[in-house]
Amino acid sequence: MKYAVILAGGVGSRFWPFSRELEPKQFMKIIGEASLLQATIQRLKGLVDPACTYIITNNIYFYEVKAQITKFRIPDKNIILEPQGKNTAPAVGLCAKLISQLDQDAVLLVLPSDHYIKNVGNFKKTLKKAIACATNNFLVTIGIKPTAPSIGYGYIRVGARCLKLGSRCLALGSNCLAYKVEKFLEKPDLNKAKKYFKDKKFFWNSGMFVWKASVFLEEVSKYLPKLHANLRLINSVNDIPKIWPKIEAISVDYGIMERSRRIALIPADFYWTDLGSWDALTEIFPKDKKGNISTADVLNLDSEGVCVFGRGQRLISTIGLKDVVIADTPDALLVCDRSKTQEVKKLVEMMKSLQRKEHQVHLTERRPWGSFTVLQQGVGFKIKLIEISPGKRLSLQRHKNRAEHWVVVSGTAKVTSGDNVNLVHSNESIYISKGVKHRLENLGRSAIKIVEVQTGAYLQEDDIERFQDDFKR
Amino acid sequence: MKYAVILAGGVGSRFWPFSRELEPKQFMKIIGEASLLQATIQRLKGLVDPACTYIITNNIYFYEVKAQITKFRIPDKNIILEPQGKNTAPAVGLCAKLISQLDQDAVLLVLPSDHYIKNVGNFKKTLKKAIACATNNFLVTIGIKPTAPSIGYGYIRVGARCLKLGSRCLALGSNCLAYKVEKFLEKPDLNKAKKYFKDKKFFWNSGMFVWKASVFLEEVSKYLPKLHANLRLINSVNDIPKIWPKIEAISVDYGIMERSRRIALIPADFYWTDLGSWDALTEIFPKDKKGNISTADVLNLDSEGVCVFGRGQRLISTIGLKDVVIADTPDALLVCDRSKTQEVKKLVEMMKSLQRKEHQVHLTERRPWGSFTVLQQGVGFKIKLIEISPGKRLSLQRHKNRAEHWVVVSGTAKVTSGDNVNLVHSNESIYISKGVKHRLENLGRSAIKIVEVQTGAYLQEDDIERFQDDFKR
Repeated sequence: MKYAVILAGGVGSRFWPFSRELEPKQFMKIIGEASLLQATIQRLKGLVDPACTYIITNNIYFYEVKAQITKFRIPDKNIILEPQGKNTAPAVGLCAKLISQLDQDAVLLVLPSDHYIKNVGNFKKTLKKAIACATNNFLVTIGIKPTAPSIGYGYIRVGARCLKLGSRCLALGSNCLAYKVEKFLEKPDLNKAKKYFKDKKFFWNSGMFVWKASVFLEEVSKYLPKLHANLRLINSVNDIPKIWPKIEAISVDYGIMERSRRIALIPADFYWTDLGSWDALTEIFPKDKKGNISTADVLNLDSEGVCVFGRGQRLISTIGLKDVVIADTPDALLVCDRSKTQEVKKLVEMMKSLQRKEHQVHLTERRPWGSFTVLQQGVGFKIKLIEISPGKRLSLQRHKNRAEHWVVVSGTAKVTSGDNVNLVHSNESIYISKGVKHRLENLGRSAIKIVEVQTGAYLQEDDIERFQDDFKR
Repeated sequence: MKYAVILAGGVGSRFWPFSRELEPKQFMKIIGEASLLQATIQRLKGLVDPACTYIITNNIYFYEVKAQITKFRIPDKNIILEPQGKNTAPAVGLCAKLISQLDQDAVLLVLPSDHYIKNVGNFKKTLKKAIACATNNFLVTIGIKPTAPSIGYGYIRVGARCLKLGSRCLALGSNCLAYKVEKFLEKPDLNKAKKYFKDKKFFWNSGMFVWKASVFLEEVSKYLPKLHANLRLINSVNDIPKIWPKIEAISVDYGIMERSRRIALIPADFYWTDLGSWDALTEIFPKDKKGNISTADVLNLDSEGVCVFGRGQRLISTIGLKDVVIADTPDALLVCDRSKTQEVKKLVEMMKSLQRKEHQVHLTERRPWGSFTVLQQGVGFKIKLIEISPGKRLSLQRHKNRAEHWVVVSGTAKVTSGDNVNLVHSNESIYISKGVKHRLENLGRSAIKIVEVQTGAYLQEDDIERFQDDFKR
């Protein structure tokens, strides 16, 4: 049986300010109506059964993943949660271990959740070739034919000779299914990248892999014996929190692929990008005659190669710029030379060290029950717009220092306030006094919106005492 | 007697998005706590009596000017209102006419309200020289010694010989009070500007003038006889609305200065800029070692010559930029190459032709009674933060299509709702039903803040029926 193992634990900071620690790239809608994670799942339709699709992610992303995968009928138990990120080798090893307990012959399609792929038909053909190859006990990596001397990707050098797949020997050329892998190479400098780009033996390392769970675990026991020993101690997801802290972080590439001798490469026959930076993103959007991209409300005067990505609701105007990326969100703006988009990571590090919060959360913060946006705060007051998803409720809670005025502006809210329970309809309001236990609930089938005006001397989020919570907070 | 005539009717679009049609440059706080208009008035302290200070502006700016000049004890009647802007010659002519009716020997200091001047001591010394010269029946212009080959200013070429002031002949050199003016020159191209800059006979035209009202009116009768005839028909401010539409727009420079033969130039002995563009603004702010200016919450990575002006409450980050101006407001962002800041005017023209609103008003819109900010709007609701100035009240009004929930978050509001009048204190709320006459009033001594949540199907500003209004709207 075929299984998908989708890696969705990344904290990708390179799309800041669109991505944040709590809303990383894989959960973002970059282009179209599906998030990158959802697009990754959609691409597998007809190839892997939803019941065989696993998603491994960090604990903190559980509700986000759950909300995003609902429509694909993937069972919640297929969301595997890591208490801490340990890079890819432990994550893939864990899934291999858990899945092989259910199916000894399982073939795993290991797929990052934050890449962009065009031509799904060819994607599936490539994966089918990889599955055939993996069935013959190879670790298969999907290689991308370079289209530019990129310094943003790792490279793989292949041998000239084809692989034997079972008894079948395949000629190099258009019919060849697989290459023997000679070497994995780190991201090169520009000179090396230019050399690699000219040489037909070099592929980009896509991070997409196909192998039998059993074969991968054999290689783990050989090259990462400590990890293997720890994985043996995990017999169910309940064991993860105990064992995980002991595990060392290491990537599949570094831990296994650079060492194993049974690796095959299948060339990809589709457009692929790992969307590793804002500049990579500019590849996939339509441009005007002067190379400008506008995904917002933009007025451009004499600008060239200016890529504007908007998420605020405001006008963005440019005059006389050349090759600049502008990424606009309600609480943070980035204006970056297009050749420097790799440096966004450094900027995020700066914010961390300055203990800011713009790298962590958006102004609209998601919660398992919906989201809230702080619209304004001043001395003694804070104004929030609260959205509650259908069927969801906030915790039963109490604040020591603040009162809350709620005006329902869309839908009907069930409001608990002390011993009273009321239905508060659109255009009605209710007042929650300081110190009174209260709860907001959406019994309806569409989201409801509530304007909350908090008043009080102390208005931080930590002034909350929870008595019951559907989300175990 | 000396009189100040301050020209405050400009719609200066070159500081967009900071300036807007309804909040032009002269009312902005560019640097420090005073607006440019207020700074212009402050500079005259000890030189001109507040009772002799006149401000001529457009009708629509009356309440803004009134609010800004309160603290200077300038009487409201000294605010002269133009129904339409007609450029500087009619404005100055009108003030000359009205003031000469009160004082035949009046000497006028004609001053733009939107310039930036450093060294007030020297400014006053220069003006005193100009007054001495004007007393001898010259039209005096203040000339600025060029500090760069600017293409943004008009130039004045002076003669080598000094003027006779009465019987006193003054030698050219450090003691010379005044130059004879040979020619006014339009804004030059860069080649001409370089030539002018090298030649000691050239000055920048500052637009600051000193003359007797009677002498100016004589020159108007000579060179602009139609204007003079119309001014004769204005015997009090009540005559302005009738006569003004007939008057042709023309500048003092073009209409009088380029033609008159009794012009003297007094060189300025102080730092001056007309703040004609964002780039001009960069001159007056402190810079870091790489020439970056940060007047906002900024993170700069490898940027040089980047000037960030912030008015939003958000983080602005830049990477690898060179010589760029970023001007950030809550509803509009400008990112402009520093050599192209003159083009902002074109951008504003684009917005006009697209019938946008970002060139007209800020997100926080000022009103005679205070201001309001639309924080959010969605289907069926709009959230506003309303501030009411001490002692002010909104009109008694009614809305056909919307209800309003008010939560007072600071101060105490007097609320009229139908036949009821209530005091609504901080942390209290009140509901105004659709169709009910209502009014908000601030009886206190400091501003009050109210969160307004509007609900209804139609939420535009034009759904308002006014029954009484302190501001004659």
